[in-house]
Amino acid sequence: MIEIKQQENQLSVYFNQQLVIKHTDQQPAFFVGQGNETIDHYRGNFEIHDDIESKIPLIDAKCTNDQIIFSYFLNELRVHFKEEDHRLIITIESSQPYNRFWIRFFAEKDEKVYGCGEQASYFNLRHRVFPLWTSEPGVGRDKKSLTTFYADLYDKAGGDYYTTYYPEPTFVSSRKYWLHADTYAYSVFNFKNDDYHELFFWEVPSQIIIAYQENFLDLIENLTDYTKRPPKLPEFLHNGMILGVQGGMKQVLNYLDQALNHGVLVSGLWCQDWAGVNYTSFGKRLYWNWTVSHELYPNLKQEIKKLSDKNIAFLTYICPFLLENESLFNSAKEQGYLVLNKNHQVYKEDFGEFYCGIVDLTNPKAFHWYKEVIKTNIIDLGIKGWMADFGEYLPVDCVLHNGKDAKLMHNEWPVLWAKCNYEAVKETDNLGKIFYFMRAGGHGSQRYATSLWAGDQSVNWELHDGIASVIPSALSTGIIGNPYTHSDIGGYTSLHGNIRTKELFDRWLEMNVFTSYMRTHEGNRPLQNFQFYNDKDTLSLMARMTHVRFDLKPYIMHLVDEAYAFGYPLQRALFMHYPNDAKTYDLQYEYLFGKDMLIKPVVYPGQTHQEVYLPDDIWVHLWTGKHFEGNQTVKVSCPVGYPPVFYRALSEHKKLFENITHKNLMQEENV
Amino acid sequence: MIEIKQQENQLSVYFNQQLVIKHTDQQPAFFVGQGNETIDHYRGNFEIHDDIESKIPLIDAKCTNDQIIFSYFLNELRVHFKEEDHRLIITIESSQPYNRFWIRFFAEKDEKVYGCGEQASYFNLRHRVFPLWTSEPGVGRDKKSLTTFYADLYDKAGGDYYTTYYPEPTFVSSRKYWLHADTYAYSVFNFKNDDYHELFFWEVPSQIIIAYQENFLDLIENLTDYTKRPPKLPEFLHNGMILGVQGGMKQVLNYLDQALNHGVLVSGLWCQDWAGVNYTSFGKRLYWNWTVSHELYPNLKQEIKKLSDKNIAFLTYICPFLLENESLFNSAKEQGYLVLNKNHQVYKEDFGEFYCGIVDLTNPKAFHWYKEVIKTNIIDLGIKGWMADFGEYLPVDCVLHNGKDAKLMHNEWPVLWAKCNYEAVKETDNLGKIFYFMRAGGHGSQRYATSLWAGDQSVNWELHDGIASVIPSALSTGIIGNPYTHSDIGGYTSLHGNIRTKELFDRWLEMNVFTSYMRTHEGNRPLQNFQFYNDKDTLSLMARMTHVRFDLKPYIMHLVDEAYAFGYPLQRALFMHYPNDAKTYDLQYEYLFGKDMLIKPVVYPGQTHQEVYLPDDIWVHLWTGKHFEGNQTVKVSCPVGYPPVFYRALSEHKKLFENITHKNLMQEENV
Repeated sequence: MIEIKQQENQLSVYFNQQLVIKHTDQQPAFFVGQGNETIDHYRGNFEIHDDIESKIPLIDAKCTNDQIIFSYFLNELRVHFKEEDHRLIITIESSQPYNRFWIRFFAEKDEKVYGCGEQASYFNLRHRVFPLWTSEPGVGRDKKSLTTFYADLYDKAGGDYYTTYYPEPTFVSSRKYWLHADTYAYSVFNFKNDDYHELFFWEVPSQIIIAYQENFLDLIENLTDYTKRPPKLPEFLHNGMILGVQGGMKQVLNYLDQALNHGVLVSGLWCQDWAGVNYTSFGKRLYWNWTVSHELYPNLKQEIKKLSDKNIAFLTYICPFLLENESLFNSAKEQGYLVLNKNHQVYKEDFGEFYCGIVDLTNPKAFHWYKEVIKTNIIDLGIKGWMADFGEYLPVDCVLHNGKDAKLMHNEWPVLWAKCNYEAVKETDNLGKIFYFMRAGGHGSQRYATSLWAGDQSVNWELHDGIASVIPSALSTGIIGNPYTHSDIGGYTSLHGNIRTKELFDRWLEMNVFTSYMRTHEGNRPLQNFQFYNDKDTLSLMARMTHVRFDLKPYIMHLVDEAYAFGYPLQRALFMHYPNDAKTYDLQYEYLFGKDMLIKPVVYPGQTHQEVYLPDDIWVHLWTGKHFEGNQTVKVSCPVGYPPVFYRALSEHKKLFENITHKNLMQEENV
Repeated sequence: MIEIKQQENQLSVYFNQQLVIKHTDQQPAFFVGQGNETIDHYRGNFEIHDDIESKIPLIDAKCTNDQIIFSYFLNELRVHFKEEDHRLIITIESSQPYNRFWIRFFAEKDEKVYGCGEQASYFNLRHRVFPLWTSEPGVGRDKKSLTTFYADLYDKAGGDYYTTYYPEPTFVSSRKYWLHADTYAYSVFNFKNDDYHELFFWEVPSQIIIAYQENFLDLIENLTDYTKRPPKLPEFLHNGMILGVQGGMKQVLNYLDQALNHGVLVSGLWCQDWAGVNYTSFGKRLYWNWTVSHELYPNLKQEIKKLSDKNIAFLTYICPFLLENESLFNSAKEQGYLVLNKNHQVYKEDFGEFYCGIVDLTNPKAFHWYKEVIKTNIIDLGIKGWMADFGEYLPVDCVLHNGKDAKLMHNEWPVLWAKCNYEAVKETDNLGKIFYFMRAGGHGSQRYATSLWAGDQSVNWELHDGIASVIPSALSTGIIGNPYTHSDIGGYTSLHGNIRTKELFDRWLEMNVFTSYMRTHEGNRPLQNFQFYNDKDTLSLMARMTHVRFDLKPYIMHLVDEAYAFGYPLQRALFMHYPNDAKTYDLQYEYLFGKDMLIKPVVYPGQTHQEVYLPDDIWVHLWTGKHFEGNQTVKVSCPVGYPPVFYRALSEHKKLFENITHKNLMQEENV
């Protein structure tokens, strides 16, 4: 129910008895204006500078039925409030074409806020400001780290706490509402004020949607009813782990044999170099012409068939860029399917020692063509999954087929890219059987991305870009409707002195048992960094961890069913199930895996024990079976291979968990 | 002559045929609004964040005689234009108490801009943005340097290209006008646009003054007629150099003897530890109770007399802070002369391991009291000069006697501090005889600071904070009417791995011959850094350089006379005398010392030769007498002790320069 109350200088909008907007002439709710931006782009890193030419507070408010006119002199917004499906829909008509727009929503001092896409530094966004613009997240992402300093210095690539592959103007509040603004324009969500959230956009959003629910589970269901949900993860993913290996078929089969010989359960081989390789100073990169490299992977279709007979999937890689002067580039160029520059020539994106064209996904014919490329070059070979990389690079100085300003399409691009992959899978009737994983995202990823991965973490322990950062990433994307995410086991980016150690790899491995699925990556510089295939001890750990994972399969399939039916993410904030426990709202390196498991991964080197907060319940330590009362912080031993994991004593999956406990050798006295 | 032309939507204000303000409804000249700032202060480093709540373009302009009403709805500025002393005076009355105000002045694309106080990174300010707020300038001042990175990380003290002890809303344009805005409020001078300069203030300035002149010499004369000029530098400064030494009278007399025995001409001993010392982790600091330390400097008055008989002045140190619980602090506190905090208790400023009170210079009684302290504790002893340190630290959360908001007094504080010293000197009839040197400044320093010094450079070669940075500092303060500045020979700040080398010291020494006066500093960590008294070779260099300096005395006294009469700075940009030479407008590490000498100091390590641009004239290399045609870049040899210095062949001081050439041993074939 919508209520608009006006008294003297104050106007308040309530929805379901909740104060949504509070406006006074001293503290107006709406501002309009004009601005001029400058956007510098360097290899996926964007430096945005905004000169605000005007910011006009609309101090006057006149109320008529479900419409309020907020105005100041000739500036006027007609704001309509309507209820639809128990949601509040705010639509805004403006008297002039403003390119800067601010709206303030009522906030409480202690309120906390989550979401806004994938946020790797902070899960609770309150008291900070979040620009929303898809980009490389940066290397280091912390202006106080040397990694970031050098990444900024050499590559303009250090990033900051808010830089993300996947921004979305959608958040969830601890006051049990979700809010989504319907626009892909650059925006800044400012949560730093005590009594309001200020949302700022480079266009007036067509609508803003808000829904309140009684609890967080209903809230996510409601939100994902709106966003739509992805297909189920293919079942085969729960049979073991995916080995991310490279070097050609002979080489990867060697790695496979090595793993199988050590007892590792392998569900897939992910060979990103299926189309060939390209050596640059950054490291070993791929040959961006998405056709099989017959040199590296001869007879691929037959090889895939053979692997399939052993229940091992073959996975590959694709992105929306096409290597200059290669077959796909030439074909797309000839047909006019590539994004153009301002001179109406093919836009060539610099990837560091090579250039690529960009398939123009706003052109329905190009979109269709690229979908067919995916079908023909990938799906037809029997490939069961791929990394659908990139999406965050769309330059703002390009010309698109649909005629829209590239800066307004920039944040939508990852969604178009997801949709292109989605339709290729759907049209071949493979939803739920074939999957892909994406790092870039936007509103729509919930439906069109079959799964996410957290991108290219640094191979270290730095909080903002190392192993820890993938946890808030998972929680933030999860809470706005992306149930499936995971990360490169071991991390990816080895630059500026960061070299992956065995310890980091092992800790990442043990953590990722409790994510959507397990997949390794060799990283950008495979030779200098730790690899599992050079270490028998890690191979043994992989064997044990994949068996734990396999034991969890029924539980995980239950979580996938839940995700499909209600949108619940596999990795969840504790407050989703313990909303009355104030302590749970600021935990960002601890999570529930489904309702019944609680994980606090080890994210610091050299750690032997870990403190874990347990909410009110009875918790059983997975490795020893030791019982703990909830509502307290406990300290447990955490040798490698035994990350702090608990399950609910009252879980209906208790037997399954107990089975894992019984198989493991950790003694209760060692906890 | 003021002309206001209005046609259709455009209104233009001309002064002496020059377009000053161009206003259209699409590109208005005035904006008003409100903002909320947050200012974090840590030991003189301020982090300022400004939330603009409104920015209203005043698109309507109505002209009546010499007044234009710029307005938008209820927002109105009455802008008066009048001519006074051939200057354009713009006064602004506003309809409401705006705390944010923007004004745009017409600019040409190729125009260049200089001044805005002391700018250590860039002399030409065009195409950059300069916040104007007095503060510590920072250690490193370059976000791309490791020095800055560590200074930010450990002390929030890295600074940036615009951070300065001495900001001033006054600039000089290559279009031969000067502009001054009459306010001490925080401001941001934005010179990055092609067709206008946007000046932004936290209050509406009471007036803005503009004057055009035919040439830059007249322009500086006109500007300093407005600002007023300082007294002449005392003559004794030109007899030799000041040794900045410490350790007590016995120790400093040893240093003096050592210098004299090596033939160094010494004009003064600067003993900053005259009041005692205080060891902290930052380094050796002073005991901030401004009375003689009888332990370190027994019988100081008699010792000063003895030195004076040898024509050697004794110099000390003072600042506006008083060490907690010491005699001056207690006296000031008792009389209510200290700045208070919001709880009306004495404000205690943290200086890193000690706390101080701040003399409230807005209280006429406190001002008078502190002036008397200077007279009694310093001047009466026969002290001929001192470092009048600090001025840039006034916290914004304090309560001042005059009742003004501390954030609006912050930029004025250095001027009050200068005035306090000035009056102490003036009232004892010592103007021109006694001097002090200040780093903090503001509008008024021109009159009240008897000289400046460039502050605490890092003891290294980094452009933004090392030896080079003192050159743009001198040129920028000079062009807005501060004729006398100099820098610590050898630099000061040894932190984050920067250690002063002999080479750096020697290069700084040879450069400072060609500045207002020569003074060494031991730096913040004397023991770890190079000192002249440990090196016979440097002592010999000091001897030679001070003799060169002494030979220049008649020329320097001529420059001081010029400064007194016309305000011309000793260190000048080349374009002041060669305004038609476009190349001279962007030189910031090369300058004229008076009209007749041209210097391009060596500011890189290991340099054996230096390229020097010579404007159209006939130039003579000082050390060899070799003649060069101007209007070309020449390359000269620059061994230590022979910095690239030239004089005008047509100079009336030619004989004096030739005398120096003849005394020196550098052979012409070595040039």
